[in-house]
Amino acid sequence: MKIAILGGTGDIGQGLALRLAADTPHTITIGSRDAEKAETKAEEYTTELDSRGLDAEVAGAENEVAAAGAKVVVLAVPPYHIGDTVEAIADALDEGDVLVSPATGMKRDDEGFHYHKPGAGSVTRIAADAAPDGVDVVGAFHNLAAARLANLDADLGIDTLVIGDDEDAKATVTDLAEGIEGLRALDAGGVANAPEIEALTPLLINVAEHNDGLNDLGIQFT
Amino acid sequence: MKIAILGGTGDIGQGLALRLAADTPHTITIGSRDAEKAETKAEEYTTELDSRGLDAEVAGAENEVAAAGAKVVVLAVPPYHIGDTVEAIADALDEGDVLVSPATGMKRDDEGFHYHKPGAGSVTRIAADAAPDGVDVVGAFHNLAAARLANLDADLGIDTLVIGDDEDAKATVTDLAEGIEGLRALDAGGVANAPEIEALTPLLINVAEHNDGLNDLGIQFT
Repeated sequence: MKIAILGGTGDIGQGLALRLAADTPHTITIGSRDAEKAETKAEEYTTELDSRGLDAEVAGAENEVAAAGAKVVVLAVPPYHIGDTVEAIADALDEGDVLVSPATGMKRDDEGFHYHKPGAGSVTRIAADAAPDGVDVVGAFHNLAAARLANLDADLGIDTLVIGDDEDAKATVTDLAEGIEGLRALDAGGVANAPEIEALTPLLINVAEHNDGLNDLGIQFT
Repeated sequence: MKIAILGGTGDIGQGLALRLAADTPHTITIGSRDAEKAETKAEEYTTELDSRGLDAEVAGAENEVAAAGAKVVVLAVPPYHIGDTVEAIADALDEGDVLVSPATGMKRDDEGFHYHKPGAGSVTRIAADAAPDGVDVVGAFHNLAAARLANLDADLGIDTLVIGDDEDAKATVTDLAEGIEGLRALDAGGVANAPEIEALTPLLINVAEHNDGLNDLGIQFT
């Protein structure tokens, strides 16, 4: 399966690209608005994989080129770029393709990080509203610490929550996520349930901030 | 230390009363607006503890009587009763006493449960606003499944998050929580960080609802 990770030069995009390339048979292309930046980063990721003896390659391309032909397109971009990004790739999407939303809205004050719920209800909902007809949106990967994901020496042993209104699309993303070693994907219902899941990101940062020895935290449901 | 659990006849109150009585040396009194109901339930809890060979007793009393002399008062009542409850016991509280808020606001629709953020910002904030001067409020125990807590045969092996603006009060509640076997208490910052923690309760219910074999879920940060 061909996977595009838009915003794949950013931190969570890097982690997803490396893990999916290392642990799954899928073809990974990272996308950026800047094709050259995407290609340079993709070479870095491929070198990193090669240094570990992994015969896996990551390609890089401009967002629309990366999305073309991909069955799953991960929107690893800031929440305020979700709408623009989906619009920019809309022509490259086919019916049955799946968009994945891992982003959250946060604001920071003196006390810590807080979930900044978008007017639309959630970032996943923004993506769903922007998606062309026939393309489903699934929320996933919110609660993964970027640095831990990108460090292939770090064990995961954690869960991610998957939300979406189309069961087939959710199954596709669940399979993709569980291809990553040490990651369990749990169903958390429909897009309407996104806010509580997007709110996990600031929560995890706050908990890591206040407890010595707990960094790059993940969650296990048990 | 004397602990009062107001709303101790309800489900989360029952679990906390049984676990604290079973696992810690503290003196536990459950409170209710109805003294007779509290006494009847307290007898049931004591019988349950006795049947397990545990020499621990739970007392029952009207809320204000239960709170009198208690160092820690747990507000295990519905969120819309927090203000009233704190007002009703205010005269029984001494400076340095600690109120604990485990409650959350939820609404349910066809999709599942959702966090219903109070106008004040959080349920913990409602309690903090209602508390008399010199009495601090700490949020804790939100993410514990009531049935699992009340079943002393069930292992916990989970975390709870503790929030509050006074470090001494937070330390008192952290020690209390960690007295429960299998429960780890983690610092999640100040009262301003309460919404993301209170939002865990509907999240846990939704995840349990959508995944076979996962019931009475807890969380581990790892």
